[in-house]
Amino acid sequence: MGIIGFGGMASYHAKQLQDYKKVKVVGIYDVDPERMAYGKECGYKLYESKEALLADKKLDIVLIATTNEVHKELVIEAMEAGKHVICEKPVTMNSDELKEIMAIEEATGQIFTINQNRRTNKDFVLMKNKVEEGLLGDVYVIESRVEGSRGMPKGWRTIKELGGGMMLDWGVHLIDQLMHMVKEKVTNVYCKMYSIEYSEVDDNFRLTMTMESGKTIHIEVSTNNYITHPRWYVLGTEGTLQIDDWNCDGQITRCVDKDAVWEDEIVYTKAGPTKTMAPRRKESTETLTLSEPMDVTDSLTVVYDQLVDAIKGKASLTITSEQAMRVMKVMEAAFESYDSGQAIAVSI
Amino acid sequence: MGIIGFGGMASYHAKQLQDYKKVKVVGIYDVDPERMAYGKECGYKLYESKEALLADKKLDIVLIATTNEVHKELVIEAMEAGKHVICEKPVTMNSDELKEIMAIEEATGQIFTINQNRRTNKDFVLMKNKVEEGLLGDVYVIESRVEGSRGMPKGWRTIKELGGGMMLDWGVHLIDQLMHMVKEKVTNVYCKMYSIEYSEVDDNFRLTMTMESGKTIHIEVSTNNYITHPRWYVLGTEGTLQIDDWNCDGQITRCVDKDAVWEDEIVYTKAGPTKTMAPRRKESTETLTLSEPMDVTDSLTVVYDQLVDAIKGKASLTITSEQAMRVMKVMEAAFESYDSGQAIAVSI
Repeated sequence: MGIIGFGGMASYHAKQLQDYKKVKVVGIYDVDPERMAYGKECGYKLYESKEALLADKKLDIVLIATTNEVHKELVIEAMEAGKHVICEKPVTMNSDELKEIMAIEEATGQIFTINQNRRTNKDFVLMKNKVEEGLLGDVYVIESRVEGSRGMPKGWRTIKELGGGMMLDWGVHLIDQLMHMVKEKVTNVYCKMYSIEYSEVDDNFRLTMTMESGKTIHIEVSTNNYITHPRWYVLGTEGTLQIDDWNCDGQITRCVDKDAVWEDEIVYTKAGPTKTMAPRRKESTETLTLSEPMDVTDSLTVVYDQLVDAIKGKASLTITSEQAMRVMKVMEAAFESYDSGQAIAVSI
Repeated sequence: MGIIGFGGMASYHAKQLQDYKKVKVVGIYDVDPERMAYGKECGYKLYESKEALLADKKLDIVLIATTNEVHKELVIEAMEAGKHVICEKPVTMNSDELKEIMAIEEATGQIFTINQNRRTNKDFVLMKNKVEEGLLGDVYVIESRVEGSRGMPKGWRTIKELGGGMMLDWGVHLIDQLMHMVKEKVTNVYCKMYSIEYSEVDDNFRLTMTMESGKTIHIEVSTNNYITHPRWYVLGTEGTLQIDDWNCDGQITRCVDKDAVWEDEIVYTKAGPTKTMAPRRKESTETLTLSEPMDVTDSLTVVYDQLVDAIKGKASLTITSEQAMRVMKVMEAAFESYDSGQAIAVSI
């Protein structure tokens, strides 16, 4: 494999692949001489141009890990040069660009995948498994939040034309996770965005997706939250799930006695009387403690395993451009919603 | 004062007024013989009809605490009978009904107020004071949540034509609190509602209001949440506030060093690498513990003090029909949003 764009993410790929048998990183190309120097330090062959890299017959695969605005042209050039391609997310700046890629993908027959690697994150898999075990009854709301307080890193993330902002950076993962889990069409998208520190991109967003069955998926990404919400919060007819953070600490509290006697009395709280919000009797619920699932492999190598299997014709791709297209269309509807103040009716 | 409709809330009023000097409850009328019997037990005069109650020259004030669908006609009858009126919330079923009341209010010159009493709730006042002290910088999101897990009490709350559902029951308070605090027009309303247990009314809702300055107010009321979010969660440019519950336990975490060195490194979490979500250094923030404010009086008698002062001409009303009209219009936009799947542009 050769790498075009040897920034932070590419060197993370390279490190993860150091002891990996199926793919060997041969060389790199980056427009930045400092990154080239770092590549040399790591022992990689340096190509003097992207053309030189793409012309190297020894390379089967190319990783595109540049800034987002040049993904499209590089992915297309690489496929046309006869390479299989893995591209960092977001795959492109918009769905039109992705459409162009998909035409070339079909024309060349090359294998093309995207590093949409958070489907194996343990916190996500834990949530997904518990929901699919039916522990919560019918699920009607899934809340997914990733919150930091250090603002956005300076650099390309703050610049609109380089594909900056939190929707394209984190939104793309969090939307992908839940579209992978909830196998329904998205029918409505509403999104609020905020530019707290950087005026041209969203450094915070709140996205509400309505699914065909009526389920609500709510996703928030923030860079200015000094106190955080739980990573996952899921409401079902029979119970509630909460996973606090990436360490997977959390709980499920379930109803075990739907018919528990309702004492027809007003309860007096410090904020006055309430019938409706009176606490449930403890014995009518049960609480299950959640913790890190030990049988889940969450590694970049999982994405490469799938890529290699597809190249060898052993299995079809798990992360496809069709899936990336759906995520891209949801993000476009989100931007349209924010720009117009409207909820956008869709069928994605 | 006479009381028409002697259910749970009315008997709560009566109890709160037992040792109150400025207003004396004389008698009651209720269509339900059981409630009449209970009124007798409490030592109140029983009127044989609402007409008999309204004809009693000794009564200055009438409390209307019936189900919501008859508020309008009773408030109007009472004002036309020369009574000052205090009405339970929601004041009416819709804004047209309230408009009719306001016409009679103006024509008769009677004093009319609504028991929109949660503006003195300690958790709300604590949040409001901290925001107004400027501890969070510019506030851009206020989240207000009231969550229970016992479903809705059976009875009128589950019936649409009696004004049931959580929006009219709790929404009316939570919207009023924040419109009282954020003195701006509402420009956009988006709302999702759920009917988990009772099909004809909302037993859960999520309302997003956008204010003229761009501030977001997010309000949720739920009756099927076995794990709860904090009561208040507020985001400002300089910090975050959280108040856990009605007991007012909570905290503010603020940034004290905006320029704290950003280590330009990827942090490796259990869910993979991230630059953006790396935790902030402890010493760049400070945490203030919040607790119950001791200088706040939260009692129904505050509402009666204001009513009596207005009747005596000492002060103008604090809770007016104009304010209730704004809240009603937000709720109508919320229902419209839910019915249409659209965000509703408004100027309220």
